[in-house]
Amino acid sequence: MSDEKKIVTGLGKPELHRVLIRGHDLTKDLVGKITFSDMTYLMLVGRFPSDGERRMTDALLTILVEHGMVSSVVSARLCYSTAPEAMQAAVASSILGAGSVHLGSSEWSAKMLVKAFPTGSSERDIDAAASAVVKKYAEKKKRIPGIGHRTHPEGDPRAVRLFEIARETGVYGRYCDFIQRICKAAEAQYGRQLPANVTGAIGAIALDMGLPWQLTKAFALIGRTLGAVAHIGEEIRNPMADNINSAIKAQLVYDFDSK
Amino acid sequence: MSDEKKIVTGLGKPELHRVLIRGHDLTKDLVGKITFSDMTYLMLVGRFPSDGERRMTDALLTILVEHGMVSSVVSARLCYSTAPEAMQAAVASSILGAGSVHLGSSEWSAKMLVKAFPTGSSERDIDAAASAVVKKYAEKKKRIPGIGHRTHPEGDPRAVRLFEIARETGVYGRYCDFIQRICKAAEAQYGRQLPANVTGAIGAIALDMGLPWQLTKAFALIGRTLGAVAHIGEEIRNPMADNINSAIKAQLVYDFDSK
Amino acid sequence: MSDEKKIVTGLGKPELHRVLIRGHDLTKDLVGKITFSDMTYLMLVGRFPSDGERRMTDALLTILVEHGMVSSVVSARLCYSTAPEAMQAAVASSILGAGSVHLGSSEWSAKMLVKAFPTGSSERDIDAAASAVVKKYAEKKKRIPGIGHRTHPEGDPRAVRLFEIARETGVYGRYCDFIQRICKAAEAQYGRQLPANVTGAIGAIALDMGLPWQLTKAFALIGRTLGAVAHIGEEIRNPMADNINSAIKAQLVYDFDSK
Amino acid sequence: MSDEKKIVTGLGKPELHRVLIRGHDLTKDLVGKITFSDMTYLMLVGRFPSDGERRMTDALLTILVEHGMVSSVVSARLCYSTAPEAMQAAVASSILGAGSVHLGSSEWSAKMLVKAFPTGSSERDIDAAASAVVKKYAEKKKRIPGIGHRTHPEGDPRAVRLFEIARETGVYGRYCDFIQRICKAAEAQYGRQLPANVTGAIGAIALDMGLPWQLTKAFALIGRTLGAVAHIGEEIRNPMADNINSAIKAQLVYDFDSK
Repeated sequence: MSDEKKIVTGLGKPELHRVLIRGHDLTKDLVGKITFSDMTYLMLVGRFPSDGERRMTDALLTILVEHGMVSSVVSARLCYSTAPEAMQAAVASSILGAGSVHLGSSEWSAKMLVKAFPTGSSERDIDAAASAVVKKYAEKKKRIPGIGHRTHPEGDPRAVRLFEIARETGVYGRYCDFIQRICKAAEAQYGRQLPANVTGAIGAIALDMGLPWQLTKAFALIGRTLGAVAHIGEEIRNPMADNINSAIKAQLVYDFDSK
Repeated sequence: MSDEKKIVTGLGKPELHRVLIRGHDLTKDLVGKITFSDMTYLMLVGRFPSDGERRMTDALLTILVEHGMVSSVVSARLCYSTAPEAMQAAVASSILGAGSVHLGSSEWSAKMLVKAFPTGSSERDIDAAASAVVKKYAEKKKRIPGIGHRTHPEGDPRAVRLFEIARETGVYGRYCDFIQRICKAAEAQYGRQLPANVTGAIGAIALDMGLPWQLTKAFALIGRTLGAVAHIGEEIRNPMADNINSAIKAQLVYDFDSK
Repeated sequence: MSDEKKIVTGLGKPELHRVLIRGHDLTKDLVGKITFSDMTYLMLVGRFPSDGERRMTDALLTILVEHGMVSSVVSARLCYSTAPEAMQAAVASSILGAGSVHLGSSEWSAKMLVKAFPTGSSERDIDAAASAVVKKYAEKKKRIPGIGHRTHPEGDPRAVRLFEIARETGVYGRYCDFIQRICKAAEAQYGRQLPANVTGAIGAIALDMGLPWQLTKAFALIGRTLGAVAHIGEEIRNPMADNINSAIKAQLVYDFDSK
Repeated sequence: MSDEKKIVTGLGKPELHRVLIRGHDLTKDLVGKITFSDMTYLMLVGRFPSDGERRMTDALLTILVEHGMVSSVVSARLCYSTAPEAMQAAVASSILGAGSVHLGSSEWSAKMLVKAFPTGSSERDIDAAASAVVKKYAEKKKRIPGIGHRTHPEGDPRAVRLFEIARETGVYGRYCDFIQRICKAAEAQYGRQLPANVTGAIGAIALDMGLPWQLTKAFALIGRTLGAVAHIGEEIRNPMADNINSAIKAQLVYDFDSK
């Protein structure tokens, strides 16, 4: 087969006596010496993080682990209760919901930031681009991804904290700045508070760390995998799936005339 | 609805101005102050880890992130190439393979350790239990879960390293000891090296950390979620899905007489 | 590469101007001429069904499509509401629950029937095997897979109907007979009605059609894929995911002292 | 809880002695009397199909069941080989790839048809709308969803056949007509054959049957669920996962300098 048909990877290589990860010996140089956030940074960015980048990565990985009995963990619990021999299926069922509306919205927010970021770099250029974003979504009557939150309408404390850490660690860059300007433009347009939410913050910070917009929801997926496992653990100790089904049944109405 | 029908959780609670995680304020007390492995330990065990437990947790989270172009990341790449708008689906496709044969075998190994562990605690009791396990699997002509590895027949360097760290951190306990005795009994039975593999080590160590056997593959799922994302990232930079399909096609034979 | 390394399939072959399915020309000989149940039979059994086998297959495919707001369609609705751009993920989230406890239990029931079926074929042999199954599960204090149903404790009308059709179509064979004898033995053991449920019936009938036990839940997976799509369709016309979340929230209790 | 919080469904209702589906008694009126395509039509459209609509539905369900060793069934085989205890996970892994590029593209094609269909209904209006679609995609340098096929560059025989049946059954309507005009406009633009492909045909036909564009890939999902099960069945009889992994490995190149 010709060379163009070769399958190339630069991530990992298993050998008889060692496993290489981006050229490093997994067991000799990495495991036992680095943290999981070091590994995350190494895998996604291609080099080890600075102290500030490590702290930022830990914050991004930690922020979305748990948010109560949200729909993604409800799915994990229901799936586990009917298929306990395949715990990985319950976890997968959970992360499948990480889409444009919830949990995965960092991707959509980051994509918007990348596409809308101006080529000029003056404050005026950036503010104009921010206003253009707000205008475009207003015309389409769509919500701007990464801005506003139902549970936290007065401001998502998680976003506030992430931006704080981004400033402290020096990760805060042009995309963090850009989303803040979009929020300001949106507040002017709609006459009410419209701060960045947690996935908006994650998207902007991940871009400033050098990730492509397509990978910004990595942190949500990793964090919520842990969250789903923890809910499955609680389900094992104290099963709630039947009560979830009962709560739904109690509100159920059958209407065979609806189409 | 009666009280027995209530849906109880002790993991997380979103409020208007804060999010509580096992009673801790997420943004005030956790994010920016703890590592992802602290969070993992808090969510799964219910308290913060000691320094040793944290190091052990980082090792468990890191060890399975990447092992080259294995089937789970092939699935992630293929899925992403046909559904790039749903990156979470590609990640889910990948972790769904974490079953009894690969990646998820820590669960099956840990279950075996728990079920076979004797009530008596003398060395003689434990060795007898270990021999009984080997005999039982030999009679069924089945592989003992957590022992032996195809890519690393002379010993899985990852298992060696994990047990080393388990000793250094004081996590090494009765289940780590038990699987080692099972390996010894298996080597006596089969007359060749049969050391614990990486998922055997993970299962035993996770049990010694206090996790139920059902959750021991949590580390594989979290780690491989990162691995899948990294392969998707590489697929974005340098798409290989077509070449994977070509490599398969080059070996394809159609035989409509087979049933 | 050597011949043993070839990848052999006898299912389908795409060519430039036609697609072959088990040797038949898809567009010339199949599509427009056969039903989906013909195709199901052709793919799974390897030949076209008789009229009776076709009717039986349609019955098996139809029986599990819909059973109200059960947990698998709740997952589909919740997933769709957060990731509407990936409808396939919502469907996948739904079928992932087809495990040993619900929906997928035909596999476990069929496996039990195959493993327990006696080599002797006298009525006495078969009754003895049936009693042995009941005794074994009673000792383990486990439910016999495929027998009994929570929503239909006095008998699952779906199982009754499937066995009726199995008799009418001549598909009813030794595995259908065997599960009925197991039910009789279980009723003697427990002193109450314990008729076969719908997945027990599916498992036995699918075995009598010649399917391996590992594939018996195919009908549930195909049927419930349709069911999940229909619930997503209803969710699009009349969104209920928020109300599902509200119903759960209304019963929620936080208890950070639980572990 | 207030009435607005009720969870309403008109699809199915399980009762003690019967199950209702859109108001029909499942075991008395449906199972044993109708085909799976009747059930599909009933669930998705809300009424029973005419003879022509039934034949069209069978054709749509059958057309995508099998297309050789494509990436979605490769995923199913790989997943099954590592997690055989969760066959539903392997099937889910397979259908997760039904996205915008392959298999699920009927959704994207149908969405385009709905959004671009003109309010005016003269031939001139419709041709103008078709040209506008082609121009828009040409400007964005994107492929028009539902048009062209790599394996079948000279025309997808499956699309041809589906349109044929759509004409014969009277289902062929304005969306079938519209996509044909888009193809004609695309051929004029690019100077080469660009016929509708199978997912383009499915999307247009499903719209003409009255389905919303969001559900048009239902047929692919149901069909490919069957396809995945059949490949898993072949994998059980004649395991190929190792050979798939070997074929990939044979083309593998490690390049740790790539980023």
